Amino acid sequence: MALRYREISSRDNPRLKALRALAEDARARRREQASLIDGVHLLEAALDAGWPVRQLMLAAEAREKAEIATLLERLSRELDVDCLVLPGSLFKLVSPVATPVGILAEIALPPVMPATGTEDVLALAGVQDAGNLGSLLRSAAAAGVKRIWLDKGCVDPWSPKALRAGMGAQFVLALEDDCLLDSRLREDARSVRVTSLGADSVSLFSLDLRAAQIWVFGAEGRGVPAELIALADSRVRIPMPGKVESLNVAAAAAVCLFEQVRQREC
Amino acid sequence: MALRYREISSRDNPRLKALRALAEDARARRREQASLIDGVHLLEAALDAGWPVRQLMLAAEAREKAEIATLLERLSRELDVDCLVLPGSLFKLVSPVATPVGILAEIALPPVMPATGTEDVLALAGVQDAGNLGSLLRSAAAAGVKRIWLDKGCVDPWSPKALRAGMGAQFVLALEDDCLLDSRLREDARSVRVTSLGADSVSLFSLDLRAAQIWVFGAEGRGVPAELIALADSRVRIPMPGKVESLNVAAAAAVCLFEQVRQREC
Repeated sequence: MALRYREISSRDNPRLKALRALAEDARARRREQASLIDGVHLLEAALDAGWPVRQLMLAAEAREKAEIATLLERLSRELDVDCLVLPGSLFKLVSPVATPVGILAEIALPPVMPATGTEDVLALAGVQDAGNLGSLLRSAAAAGVKRIWLDKGCVDPWSPKALRAGMGAQFVLALEDDCLLDSRLREDARSVRVTSLGADSVSLFSLDLRAAQIWVFGAEGRGVPAELIALADSRVRIPMPGKVESLNVAAAAAVCLFEQVRQREC
Repeated sequence: MALRYREISSRDNPRLKALRALAEDARARRREQASLIDGVHLLEAALDAGWPVRQLMLAAEAREKAEIATLLERLSRELDVDCLVLPGSLFKLVSPVATPVGILAEIALPPVMPATGTEDVLALAGVQDAGNLGSLLRSAAAAGVKRIWLDKGCVDPWSPKALRAGMGAQFVLALEDDCLLDSRLREDARSVRVTSLGADSVSLFSLDLRAAQIWVFGAEGRGVPAELIALADSRVRIPMPGKVESLNVAAAAAVCLFEQVRQREC
């Protein structure tokens, strides 16, 4: 195992151009089945999860930083890939963050683990904010919910921003995108729970959540589409004693998924 | 009650410059004890809460939009203020959002409601992401926690971005900023709960949360400072059965605050 260092000095370098497309363009990520992760924490999470790293990029100036030097030692023990070394000015062109720490990796997207049909599912309809989507995935991964269904209206979960907000959650989840949620919910025997403020909704705290659940959450603002609400076994209301009667979608999902954790622990 | 429409066409107009400072500069907001809110939803929330609106700004092109025309009718019934009418190009200079809907209001910051000493408190140390801060405030307001202590390391809760993420929560909370959290926690008789992954932490679900609580949450990444953890009555761990062992700070706070709601309801 070793890193093969390659100096790059031209902004017209084709590998650099391909990496820039991965940073900016969801179609390029899908075509190449790859994405970019930036920074020490995410790279460590990828290594811990045994994620396939295709190549590395390093800002020449960052090589001496202590945390990067330590990470490079680990990378050279565990990987056998090229490490492109770029001047900071070129590195910034590829990096998806405003103040990059100086190391990036191209990762391969995983094949999706086969479904068991008896596991918990988090189903998301039209979540368009990458920060919210990342937070949702992070809460699911922490709560032990491993399978995620995303409909066509959701933002790309492999975008650098969603990866950053997910803090490594994407590496341990089975993410299925472009899902037709209505046909999936119609065919499924598991309990389907949809948050809703409708008059016929029941309190989250009155539900028995010990068996496998499919949780459906909707877009910021618009909520879950009516046709999906109609397919739910329960329309669920989080009791809100305060003067504000709505939650951020990622906060609402965290409350529901950890009520499920509580019931299974207690 | 009526709106006094004033046409503005120069970017050097001093009122326009003052508004731009409110959009961009936390010191200007503090000096003027004012901030800017954008869009229909936030303005409605401000009116519903009886919040003092000092003046309005309207993009001339937006006047005919149905949702804005409806809102202007309500505003003209309930307010007696100037409404500056600007060409869209000038309006964009003031608006804190990339694609403004076309209406903005200058609001006065409130005097902080006096503390009772027997209410729940959400104390935040170094929360620097305005989106997270807004989501935290929104969860607190929904859970019925009305008093917020922010230390000097937190982002301005009155920034346009935090107001947007708060979705109106700021209008119903008592927000105290620049708090010296360590001296406050040391002097307080209420139960102080701090989330921590330390070995001596106890499960959230084992705590009795029915009496008034002070909840302390820390910065993204670094968590709660050690000196505050040391002052807590309980170091609290959210049980995480999954492979990821951390949550976004706003998700973690939502889980804790709604476990408190659950215990008080059940």
